[in-house]
Amino acid sequence: MIKVGIIGGTGYTGVELLRILAQHPQVELQAITSRGDAGIPVANMFPSLRGRVALDFVDPKAAALETCDVVFFATPNGIAMGQARSLVDAGVRVIDLAADFRIKDPAEWERWYGMKHAAPELIAEAVYGLPEANREKIRSARLVANPGCYPTAVQLGFLPLVESGLVDTTHLIADAKSGVSGAGRKAEIHTLFAEASDNFKAYGVPGHRHLPEIRQGLSIAASKPVELTFVPHLTPMIRGIHATLYAQVTREADFQALYESRYKAEPFVDVLPFASHPDTRSVRAANVCRIALHRPQGGNTLVVLSVIDNLVKGAAGQAVQNMNIMFGFDECAGLTQIPVLP
Amino acid sequence: MIKVGIIGGTGYTGVELLRILAQHPQVELQAITSRGDAGIPVANMFPSLRGRVALDFVDPKAAALETCDVVFFATPNGIAMGQARSLVDAGVRVIDLAADFRIKDPAEWERWYGMKHAAPELIAEAVYGLPEANREKIRSARLVANPGCYPTAVQLGFLPLVESGLVDTTHLIADAKSGVSGAGRKAEIHTLFAEASDNFKAYGVPGHRHLPEIRQGLSIAASKPVELTFVPHLTPMIRGIHATLYAQVTREADFQALYESRYKAEPFVDVLPFASHPDTRSVRAANVCRIALHRPQGGNTLVVLSVIDNLVKGAAGQAVQNMNIMFGFDECAGLTQIPVLP
Amino acid sequence: MIKVGIIGGTGYTGVELLRILAQHPQVELQAITSRGDAGIPVANMFPSLRGRVALDFVDPKAAALETCDVVFFATPNGIAMGQARSLVDAGVRVIDLAADFRIKDPAEWERWYGMKHAAPELIAEAVYGLPEANREKIRSARLVANPGCYPTAVQLGFLPLVESGLVDTTHLIADAKSGVSGAGRKAEIHTLFAEASDNFKAYGVPGHRHLPEIRQGLSIAASKPVELTFVPHLTPMIRGIHATLYAQVTREADFQALYESRYKAEPFVDVLPFASHPDTRSVRAANVCRIALHRPQGGNTLVVLSVIDNLVKGAAGQAVQNMNIMFGFDECAGLTQIPVLP
Amino acid sequence: MIKVGIIGGTGYTGVELLRILAQHPQVELQAITSRGDAGIPVANMFPSLRGRVALDFVDPKAAALETCDVVFFATPNGIAMGQARSLVDAGVRVIDLAADFRIKDPAEWERWYGMKHAAPELIAEAVYGLPEANREKIRSARLVANPGCYPTAVQLGFLPLVESGLVDTTHLIADAKSGVSGAGRKAEIHTLFAEASDNFKAYGVPGHRHLPEIRQGLSIAASKPVELTFVPHLTPMIRGIHATLYAQVTREADFQALYESRYKAEPFVDVLPFASHPDTRSVRAANVCRIALHRPQGGNTLVVLSVIDNLVKGAAGQAVQNMNIMFGFDECAGLTQIPVLP
Repeated sequence: MIKVGIIGGTGYTGVELLRILAQHPQVELQAITSRGDAGIPVANMFPSLRGRVALDFVDPKAAALETCDVVFFATPNGIAMGQARSLVDAGVRVIDLAADFRIKDPAEWERWYGMKHAAPELIAEAVYGLPEANREKIRSARLVANPGCYPTAVQLGFLPLVESGLVDTTHLIADAKSGVSGAGRKAEIHTLFAEASDNFKAYGVPGHRHLPEIRQGLSIAASKPVELTFVPHLTPMIRGIHATLYAQVTREADFQALYESRYKAEPFVDVLPFASHPDTRSVRAANVCRIALHRPQGGNTLVVLSVIDNLVKGAAGQAVQNMNIMFGFDECAGLTQIPVLP
Repeated sequence: MIKVGIIGGTGYTGVELLRILAQHPQVELQAITSRGDAGIPVANMFPSLRGRVALDFVDPKAAALETCDVVFFATPNGIAMGQARSLVDAGVRVIDLAADFRIKDPAEWERWYGMKHAAPELIAEAVYGLPEANREKIRSARLVANPGCYPTAVQLGFLPLVESGLVDTTHLIADAKSGVSGAGRKAEIHTLFAEASDNFKAYGVPGHRHLPEIRQGLSIAASKPVELTFVPHLTPMIRGIHATLYAQVTREADFQALYESRYKAEPFVDVLPFASHPDTRSVRAANVCRIALHRPQGGNTLVVLSVIDNLVKGAAGQAVQNMNIMFGFDECAGLTQIPVLP
Repeated sequence: MIKVGIIGGTGYTGVELLRILAQHPQVELQAITSRGDAGIPVANMFPSLRGRVALDFVDPKAAALETCDVVFFATPNGIAMGQARSLVDAGVRVIDLAADFRIKDPAEWERWYGMKHAAPELIAEAVYGLPEANREKIRSARLVANPGCYPTAVQLGFLPLVESGLVDTTHLIADAKSGVSGAGRKAEIHTLFAEASDNFKAYGVPGHRHLPEIRQGLSIAASKPVELTFVPHLTPMIRGIHATLYAQVTREADFQALYESRYKAEPFVDVLPFASHPDTRSVRAANVCRIALHRPQGGNTLVVLSVIDNLVKGAAGQAVQNMNIMFGFDECAGLTQIPVLP
Repeated sequence: MIKVGIIGGTGYTGVELLRILAQHPQVELQAITSRGDAGIPVANMFPSLRGRVALDFVDPKAAALETCDVVFFATPNGIAMGQARSLVDAGVRVIDLAADFRIKDPAEWERWYGMKHAAPELIAEAVYGLPEANREKIRSARLVANPGCYPTAVQLGFLPLVESGLVDTTHLIADAKSGVSGAGRKAEIHTLFAEASDNFKAYGVPGHRHLPEIRQGLSIAASKPVELTFVPHLTPMIRGIHATLYAQVTREADFQALYESRYKAEPFVDVLPFASHPDTRSVRAANVCRIALHRPQGGNTLVVLSVIDNLVKGAAGQAVQNMNIMFGFDECAGLTQIPVLP
């Protein structure tokens, strides 16, 4: 049993962490902080946790997080970078679900996130927590930058192709669609039910913060700079990301075999039969990425479909997967829930 | 470990049974039948089960169900009554998720269901599987009639009141709202997305089949005939039932204390603080009924709000709860999933 | 042609007023105000109006509203009561879509709305704008209090019964369900898509502000105090209200004939054949109330189903209907759009 | 006034035709046929039309369609090709909303639609009814092939680019998302609410019937064969198509000016300011296509966003637009409804 703390537990990644960790066999939830809601039982805000999580939200100052074995930051961008240092120095392992440590180049991070980085020296130490790419480094990491939701779906979909150099990496296209929970539990007009329901739109086409993160990951995998057009869309569902990926084949291969081989040992990546159409509900509430390959009309364009639950494999589930790796647990511990369908 | 068979597994209660049973520590899934889809892997129809359920659908004739310890009927009404006899005689315990054995009066059953009952003698033996009312009888039952979804939500909401004789039982009102999965996985026009989405309507107001079932249960609890107006509605969500119940107080009492006391020992009924507003998502994908009491403006009308997931506490979860009771397992075995929110 | 002004046009009733008025043959839109968005073209905020509404939002001070023939307040509660006086004095007719002038008893208004009323003398003058009850008074009104959405659906459903004294008016029940646009275009957590979608809940059961408004209207119609239990619910759709009404019959009558006769001359109330089930989409985006009667199992309880679009017959459409009456136009002018289905 | 007949009016394009035509100032609805529902009032099936459409469905044989000026086929594919001949010979002008006359090469049509074409000689005569490309031919056409929904959104989005030869037409990508009404009013499992809600998936990636139609239209516009990857998706909304289009620039130009100039005179194409994000609800229930251009990070890839209501500009609205052109009416007659938002 390890002692776990969560900083900022009132958002969707926070409650999802609680749902998963409360059922994890090797975890003792020690504290969950919230500046604004200190003293309130967690189960009052999230009645789904009644009888299952007995904690109250506690003020960050009173949380004694240094006594935890691991602390998750489920905070907005810009919080973890100010607080991770002292925890790491106290020997606490840290997993940041926000973006503070995802981009290796501090200048690029500052450009996209519009603030000064408070701990650039920690960026260098942080391990990017995509287990399918970085499992070994994650084992010993003191600080893990948990990937974004789009970046998880897009990178897992493209990785085998860019690693093997079989496609034109100067013109990759990622057309991605996300459920509305991806925008977080924030009071905003554009994600109101009456705005986002029965509606579909693209957003952030000129430039979305997940673009540099995806580009960085794919460039490392390709061992050369990758160029990507990334268009995110908002779709009227709660959970789920569907990434539709397009690449031009430059060298022929058995792409289906390539994917199956690449992900054979991965517990949370499921390569479907060739020409399948995964739907997002097939991964709802579970820590899985399902991928299918297409070659429309046998042409030069390869289409990859990649689906995840943005709150699980795209956030809290992947964070727990990283925790399992860091502490030498069974990588699937606490992550065996079957997707909820319908 | 017990051997479990499922007859008719291609509907929503079928896949939900599979989701729950595949994670149950004392169950071995032996067979799942489908006349039309024999030979097809279950996970092809329900990709959410990929890697978790390895069975193929099998023809009912080839299923060797007599070797099972328990068989679930997840079939349309009218199937179980023709097949339960031979299974029961073979020593197999049977749980019918359809309506064949719910109504004790065969004539009334035939009136509401529009067919001749094939096994009236089994009706007498069958135990109505609402654990909160019939737990002791369920333990030794050979045949359990698993309650309907509306009847579960409405009876659990009204039980303490009618048992204690504190309200006028000649004018109960149950205004109930169901998600669309309650209509089953059948190709029909009125439950198409483009018909049922962004829309709300009542249906079956002149008389719904769940009315006699609710009336029977409440009359037994009241030890006298109960009169009920039951109006079901279709609401554009996948899962969930919200029953809004109205009763006229005839004798004063501490109703909140009454409910808390009545359900104190029940693992799957959660009485919320007085004047709460439970939402259906707080029980999504979990075997829980949450109940809240109101007394608007301190008047004579008591309002009870009762929510369940129609596919879990309203169907497959309650069926597994009954199985646990029948086989002496921990009543919560396999039923500890935390609701999925958001 | 009359000159029309709108105060506070950035909410859902504002944009709906614009949609209707821009197609009205006798209306010239003169000004639409917004303190926060002055200078911004209306069509930038609501692209649905591109090419159809050329106005910019204008600061209230610069709007020259005194030169309008009629001004609509599409503002939050508490604004119109401070500004209506000067407009009325300037000879401008005023229609308030908020609640400021709906409740005749200022003390009761202050109790439910939690603020001091700024113009109690105007309450006395204001005409409650339910044309089916008050058409003649509306014709000459200088100030119309446009009814709330729930009150419109509930009153139209109950009016024939309470006017004729055929039911027990001490125990009326109104179980009402509203789409999420009824909560307005405000940045709040509980109406986010990820909160309100795939979910159903009651709210305000201890007491909702529309209760006194409904009670007042029905009491006037009954010529005696009426007691009502009113339970509103939030249902995951954008537009629409479905009121399910319950009354105990005290004297028999041909209720269907009663309703058909009562509403025969009403252009915007449609009495369906007995035992119909109106769905909310059958009135989507149109100024209609559809009503159906039921007598379940021939018992003593009469069930009335009443549906409207909360933004049209429940707000902007009814306001334009009132305007048509006030200015002697054809009552249907600008209100002939056919509901959008599917 | 012209006399209008509709063949096959029980689907979504049928009821949408009725909604539009019932408000058209120059149309007299003469007959609407349905083999299965003859004798039933149209308004019984579609209560939204109560009081607005007085017709009953009539058997095709009894419909006297030869006396109509124009007949719309709102039928499944394969019906119009068998019946159009006799109508055209009788001097009735025909608009087919299905696919029978869209593909100029009968062999290709038969390959994609899996049946023998019954009237190949009519294919040659038929005019493809995309007014923005073929307005002059439509004026005098006896038989119009109304475009498919995806083809309308994709062609309008790509036309200016391929006409002007500024992009690589060997690698166009159209990633398109459709609301569920696009699948029609057919009893099928995969479009049930409980399947399609809170879910997102691609379908038909190996080859969708709209691909050859789009390819044909763009090839004509480009005056050379165009290669296109077309991936349709199902998104949980009722109405709307959002096409996200990708093209590689081969020659620089002021693309925004190009689009604005190309569509300046078009009443139903709205080019938004550069880098806008049109949402589908901004065209809901209206005959408009809104288009926005992007050049992410100033790179080589041009992104075009194109939205329509699949039932209006993608079907019934465009059909009425074609009718207006054919009969010399104002092209906007009956098509001036403002989109319904929210």
